Formats: sequence, C-alpha cells, structure tokens
Amino acid sequence: MSQQLIIFDTTLRDGEQSPGASMTKDEKLRIARQLERLRVDVIEAGFAASSNGDFEAVKAIADAVRESTICSLARANDRDISRAAEALKGAARSRIHTFIATSELHMEKKLRMTREQVLEQAIQAVRFARNLTDDVEFSPEDGYRSDPEFLAQVVEAVIKAGARTINIPDTVGYAIPELYGNFIKTLRERVPNSDQAIWSVHCHNDLGMAVANSLAGVQIGGARQIECTINGLGERAGNCSLEEVVMAVKTRRDYFGLDLNIDATQIVPASRMVSQTTGFVVQPNKAVVGANAFAHASGIHQDGVLKARDTYEIMRAEDVGWAANKIVLGKLSGRNAFKQRLQELGISLESEAEVNAAFVRFKDLADRKNEIFDEDILALVMDESVTTEHEHYRLVALSQRSETGERPHAQVVFAAGDVEHRTESEGNGPVDAVLKAIESAAQSGVEMLLYSVNAITSGSTESQGEVTVRLQLAGRVVNGVGADPDIVVASAKAYLSALNKLHSKIERVAAQG
Amino acid sequence: MSQQLIIFDTTLRDGEQSPGASMTKDEKLRIARQLERLRVDVIEAGFAASSNGDFEAVKAIADAVRESTICSLARANDRDISRAAEALKGAARSRIHTFIATSELHMEKKLRMTREQVLEQAIQAVRFARNLTDDVEFSPEDGYRSDPEFLAQVVEAVIKAGARTINIPDTVGYAIPELYGNFIKTLRERVPNSDQAIWSVHCHNDLGMAVANSLAGVQIGGARQIECTINGLGERAGNCSLEEVVMAVKTRRDYFGLDLNIDATQIVPASRMVSQTTGFVVQPNKAVVGANAFAHASGIHQDGVLKARDTYEIMRAEDVGWAANKIVLGKLSGRNAFKQRLQELGISLESEAEVNAAFVRFKDLADRKNEIFDEDILALVMDESVTTEHEHYRLVALSQRSETGERPHAQVVFAAGDVEHRTESEGNGPVDAVLKAIESAAQSGVEMLLYSVNAITSGSTESQGEVTVRLQLAGRVVNGVGADPDIVVASAKAYLSALNKLHSKIERVAAQG
Repeated sequence: MSQQLIIFDTTLRDGEQSPGASMTKDEKLRIARQLERLRVDVIEAGFAASSNGDFEAVKAIADAVRESTICSLARANDRDISRAAEALKGAARSRIHTFIATSELHMEKKLRMTREQVLEQAIQAVRFARNLTDDVEFSPEDGYRSDPEFLAQVVEAVIKAGARTINIPDTVGYAIPELYGNFIKTLRERVPNSDQAIWSVHCHNDLGMAVANSLAGVQIGGARQIECTINGLGERAGNCSLEEVVMAVKTRRDYFGLDLNIDATQIVPASRMVSQTTGFVVQPNKAVVGANAFAHASGIHQDGVLKARDTYEIMRAEDVGWAANKIVLGKLSGRNAFKQRLQELGISLESEAEVNAAFVRFKDLADRKNEIFDEDILALVMDESVTTEHEHYRLVALSQRSETGERPHAQVVFAAGDVEHRTESEGNGPVDAVLKAIESAAQSGVEMLLYSVNAITSGSTESQGEVTVRLQLAGRVVNGVGADPDIVVASAKAYLSALNKLHSKIERVAAQG
Repeated sequence: MSQQLIIFDTTLRDGEQSPGASMTKDEKLRIARQLERLRVDVIEAGFAASSNGDFEAVKAIADAVRESTICSLARANDRDISRAAEALKGAARSRIHTFIATSELHMEKKLRMTREQVLEQAIQAVRFARNLTDDVEFSPEDGYRSDPEFLAQVVEAVIKAGARTINIPDTVGYAIPELYGNFIKTLRERVPNSDQAIWSVHCHNDLGMAVANSLAGVQIGGARQIECTINGLGERAGNCSLEEVVMAVKTRRDYFGLDLNIDATQIVPASRMVSQTTGFVVQPNKAVVGANAFAHASGIHQDGVLKARDTYEIMRAEDVGWAANKIVLGKLSGRNAFKQRLQELGISLESEAEVNAAFVRFKDLADRKNEIFDEDILALVMDESVTTEHEHYRLVALSQRSETGERPHAQVVFAAGDVEHRTESEGNGPVDAVLKAIESAAQSGVEMLLYSVNAITSGSTESQGEVTVRLQLAGRVVNGVGADPDIVVASAKAYLSALNKLHSKIERVAAQG
C-alpha cells in the first residue's frame, strides 16, 4: 500500500459552513494561495452550485492556484455537477466531489428516498461527473452510521462507475478511533473493487476525537486521504484540524510511516490568516497553533527544557512556522518596499489601483504606529476599502468621549453609497455610542451576535486592535473585521464592514457536514 | 472490573500551571465549588509545597468542599508530602498525589539520579504519605516514555508501599490511542499486584489526541480514572478536556459501558467560570463548550435538524448546561433578591461586608445597563474590589476622548495604597492612552503579553466588555480581568487588577506536567 498520505483541505467549504465564518471571494482566494504554499494536495474551494458567490470563488481559485488540485462539492445531480465542472474549467488539476446520504436516518428523514433510489442516483452522478473530469470523489453522507452492507453495495457501484476516491464521513462526530478504523477496514474488505480507489476519512470533532479517528481510519482502515481544515474550522465543534493531524503524522513517523507533501512551516501563517479572516479565535491551549502551544511556565519545566529540549518538547516551534514578530516596515518605507513585502507575504492584489489604495492605508497607519509587523500588513489588505468589492458603507470621521459619571458620547460621519451621514449618540460605553450612532442613520435592524477585540502582533495596546463583530439579519450571519490602533475606530470599521457584507446579498444553498 | 469511572479534575493544579492562568485563592475556591457541583470525584486543588499561596488555596478548598475528595500534588520528598497533608487536614476526604520521573531522559537530564535512587525515593515517599493519609496516588512522570520493565518495577514497589492509585502520564503528549492503551494493558499485566490499585490516565494534547488517548487507556488498558481539566486548560496544548471525555463516555455508553458521577448540566457553567477567571478564551468550534458546538448554519442541516434531531445531533445542548441567557435582575432588584441569586449561582461571599460591596457594584451597574445577566453577576463578584484581598491599586475616575486626525488623550485618577495619583497621557488609541497614563504614575515596568476584549452575555455592545490583560514582570506572568459597559474603563480595571496581582508577590515552585 502507498506510503503517500493525501491532505485534502476543506477550510473553504466545510470550514466556511460554520455559522459566522462566511468569506468573500477575495478572502477565499487569499486563503487558497496560502493553502497552495502549505502544499496541500487538494483544496476543496467551495460548493459551486450553492450560490453565484460560491461559484465565482471556486472559479477564481481554480484560475489562480497551480500546484494543488482544486475541488468543488456537488450534490448527486446533473445541475450541481455541471456547475462544479464549469467553475473548475481553468484549474490545472480539478476534482468533482459528489455526495448523497446513505444512513437510514438521513435517507428516510431528510432525503425521503429508498435505498434503490439512493444507489441509482449515486451511480448516475458519478458517471455524469466522470464525463466531465477524470478525478471524481464520492462521499456517502453519514457513512459511518450507515448499514455496512448497503454502504458496501453503494461504494462498489460508484467505483465501478468511475469514482477514484471514496470518502467515508463521520458526519455527526460520533466515532471512536478503534471502531472507525475497523469500520473502514471491514468496508474495504467487503468491497471487491476497493483497491481501485483511494479511501478517505472525514471526521467531525463533536466528541473531541476527530484527529484520532482520522488517524485510525488511516492506520487501521487503510485510508490514504484525510479531509481536514485549518484550525479545525467547521460546523458545530468543527472538522479534523489540519495542523494536528499533519504534525501527528510527522512527529510519529515511527508509527505511521507515511509521507506528506505539506510544508509545515506554513502552518502558523495559515492558521493566523484563517483566524484573522473569519474572526474565529484560536484558543491559547490549542495544539500546534495556540499561543501557548510551545510555551512553558513552570519552573521545573523551564529547567527541564534548558537541560534537554526533548524532556518537554516533541516538536519544534520553528518547524510549524512560529517566529518572533519582526518589524518589517516603518514610516520611511517606500511604495516599492511595501509592494515587495506584499509579495513576500504571498499577497497579490488584483490591480495597481489596489496596491495604491493599500499603500495609502499603510502610510496612514505608519503615521500613527511606529512599528509595522506582518500581521498589520495582513490586516491592512483585509480592509475592504483596499479592494474594490463591497464598498457601500465607508467611515469618514469619528469622535468620542467618555468620563466617569457621564454617559459616553460619539459623533460619526460615514458614507452610504453617495450619501454622507453625520450622526451622534450616547451609549453604555464609547463603542456602544459609536455603533448606536451608525445604526441610527443606517437603520439596518441587525442583531449583534458577537463582539470581540484582539491585539494584532504583540499584546501591547500600542499595536492595532482587531475588532470582530458578527451580525445577523433575517437568518444571515456575517462577520465584519476592522483594525486600527484606536479600538473605537476599529469597532466602527468592523461594523461597517459587516453591513457591507450584508449589503452584497449572497444567497446560497448549503452542503453536507 | 468496576464499571465506575473516576473523574479527577486538575484544572486548579495542572491547568493553573499554564502561562498566564494563575489564579487567586478566592478564584480557586469559587472554581472548586463549581467542580463540586459538577460532582467530580477528585479535585486536585494545587501543589501545597510550591508556595504559601498554593498552600492557602489547597487549605481553603479542603475546608470548604465536602462532596469531592481533595488532593494536593507533592514531589517525592517528606517536606512536600507533609505540607500537602497539613493543607488537606480539614478535608472530608483527602488524597496525596506524589510523583517522580521515571524516563531515562528525565532521570538523567532533569533529576540526575540513577534508577535505584528513583525507585528508592518513590517507595519512601509513598510510605511516608501513607502514614499521613489512606488515599495515596503515585505518578511516574513521563511514564509513557519510560522503560516498561523499570516502570513495572517502580509501580509494583509503590503499590506494595501503599499507593492506591497508579497514574501513567503522557507528560509530553506523544501518545497514540492504540499504543497508549496497549502500553497500560501490558504494564498492568506485568505488575503482579496491579489489581490492588486503581489505574489512572493523564494525557496532554500536543498532537490533539488527549481525549482519545485517555479513553484508549480506559478501554484497552483497563484504567478507571481519567485526569482532566475544564476547557482542556493546561501547559502548552493543555490536558485532556473534561467536557469532551465525559460526554464521549456518556454519548457512547454502548461502547464504554461505564458509569460516571458527573452532573453534565454543570459543564457549561464550569467552562464559563474557568474561561472568565483565567481570561483563556474558548474557541467557538470547541467541542461541547464552544459557542458553535450546537449551532447549525447550513440550510440542509437546519432542514435535517427540523426533520429529525438525530440527523445531525448526538448530544443535546441542554444536557451539558447550555441555556438561553436569562434576565435575572434589574435596577429595581433589592439586596435580598441579589443575595438569593448569588446563592443560586453557587457564589458564596465570605462576609456580609463583601455582599454589601458586591451589591453597591450591582446597583452601579444596573444604573448603566438595563438587563443584568448571570454572567454580569459573575463578572461583578470577580471584581477584586468586592473581595478583601489584593487591593493595592484602585480606579477612582477616568476620562478620555479621541477624534479623527488628533492623538487620543486620557486622564486617570487612581489610588495606590493611600496615595491618589492624577495622571494623563496621549496614546495610539484611548485604551493605549489610559494605560500609558496609569503606567506613567505606577512605573511598574511591566511588559504586556496579551490584550483582549469579549462581550459578556450576548455579543451586543450594550453588554459589558470583559477585558483581559496579561502582564509580565521579571519572569512572572499574571492576568488581570476587568468588566464594565465602557471598554476603556474595563481596560483600566483589568490593568490595575493585574498590577495588584503582581503587587501581592507569590513565589512558587512548579510541578509536573
């Protein structure tokens, strides 16, 4: 059996399905480029048929990324599969990933289909997809809770129909390593043509075992593809974490004996980019990418680490891309230096106009902040006013004050399209006053689900505050992110950014777990 | 073999060892009471010999908690063990947990001891501890990387010397479920008197497999105690998460067939309390206790969930203590209603003076915020000015303003002991200006490692902002937490709270991982 383990990243599809994690096309493209630098084998870029926005994002990624295979999800019907193929046209290598549920529960309650209908539709879908591309993956949704006999029948048939990858999802995160590994092993033994496909695992983390389950699927079950996401992003408790599963395979090569194409030094940059983009924080005690993952507090441990690194460390921080923050640019840096740093960071802005807009922001920031770090630049290019999309609302000016014993007060000037609003309000705090002022003119009627602030770069309050707000309107949930040395200003930017996302209405159907 | 699985919580010992997670005595006591409500079998309350502060905390918990066994860690020497026994005197049931490293790497590089010396010291320590209490636990540190033959020899000897629980730590988080389970199984088979002790697992999460490893230690290895922490708090990537391991055993009772004493409805309240106290955020996609753990975004899933809950849910949110925020009190609530709510929340303030101080804060908050939630009350009693300890620095008044195009400016009045400082400063933002103003008078020379803000209760900016700052001074790391509807004020409170913690110097030796 092959020693090569395929890493299939679904941050942009299953990860993005997480409530509040939806991303714009530009954000997805930026993350896809980082995934390419990370050298993931397959990037599931989205679910092309679910919305025009998703179609465009898959297409943009297929057109831009050269090193990784680009995949789109598609339900098991001709329309979904055609849309996927169309979006993937420009890809160097493309894959269509089609799925249909096979568990009794899902077939009966959700699909309202018989076994025979599901089997027939799966075969038709794979055949249809194979006419459009050579690389077809099939997933029986809720596979782990399916009747093994029926599942084997479906899998055998879709391999015969041309599926090259068979993925067995633990859709609800119910599995246990030993059971899941043996489930896949038994299934492979039961399917006569199982050796004509690569087997894949897709685990959710509801009981905290997605990584261990995935690895048991590989080690016991013989799977050679793992589906995972950066930071374990995904619905509910999320998916298998790419960073954990990759570092487990690398660190315990003695046990797994598997090869990976991944460049692990790109893991931490990828984690930061996904966290900054979605506003989903990474907890400090998260394995590999958490702020404390390589920190040692206690005297004994520090002593031990000094005496011999191996006493408490099984990985090296630098191997996964942790590096001290470096001052990269300052007030005196010119446009060329700035542009070069963008390139080194793998950020490619679409046009010279965007580079110019970003440079104006950069100079503005450098006037107020002495040291500009890589994270500041990333925040800066994520600012929507740099890119051309979505700019309906724009902050023009803001003033606010608060004083013990008095109600905080704010005045805000912002543009909505061509109209400039001047507005003011009191609030419980200065941020509340600013957002109330904006809302009094914007009249969006949104509900705020989340408000959080993190310092970019070091914890110092001299660094920029990065504010994430999550707004809900009529069932849609969006995140807005804003960065500024003044967190009141950052809050206003984040709020307007979220309103911009709501303004550019994206309707979408959603996908499997 | 017994079906009873013992849950040993070490949030207050191994969890607190995490850089920045150190807690005051009052905070620890509050969490211990919550752990008692959660019905954990054993609470490892600290490491009594490591510092006077830790001694006092273990003692306070031993005196207050009646339902759970209270445990203190102790190195394998008479002094440590005596201190532990002394601190535990008031406990209804007490345990001494003594440890010494048994891996070649740790013995050679850290302890600089021979195998014979380690064996002898382990036996002596257990004997000494058994003279002081019946319930003695022994851990061979870095046990999983120890020579199995030597390890078996040590374990057999300490059981003979009186150890009732044998805990095999995967100190560096290197294990894999199958290997760890078999390691414990083989070890138990090798130790002739293994049935005279309860076996325990203690796993770290460096490769994301602490939960699966612990459960393999139980299922394959025959262990009947799991050591874990709330939110997986702990050094580096943390320990096995209590909430995940408990819900895995409950949800997959078909596989494990084990009984637990845990009241799972206390899990989410415990998670929030630990997160609020330490300032360690829980990421939204954290299993069981993350904000998204029970959320469904995609249309298909929502449809599925409506049609049959089981299609996408294997646990119910209410079973682990998720409940909608309830407005509990308001402006018109009186002292008795407030006091009753404190009791319902399991918060017991030490004296009537503290209840009065908390009530004054409550009325002040109710003047500025219409709806007071349980989380607000928790934040309120965590405010140091309510309790009597540590109050050197105190915020008196604050005013600040910022305006586009001008440098933000702040004036602060604060007390340091009996001296009142009036000070002002500019800064990159209003928070920066306030902290610079405080620092210009306090002259603490601290370095800020982290600054973060989260909204308490709903995400609305009408709710209070809870600010966490992490400061470092001469190698010591402390967190300060402050809550206020005005996040600039909350920032000042958090900063002063951290300075107070640094002011009350606590020196401590640290413990095993």
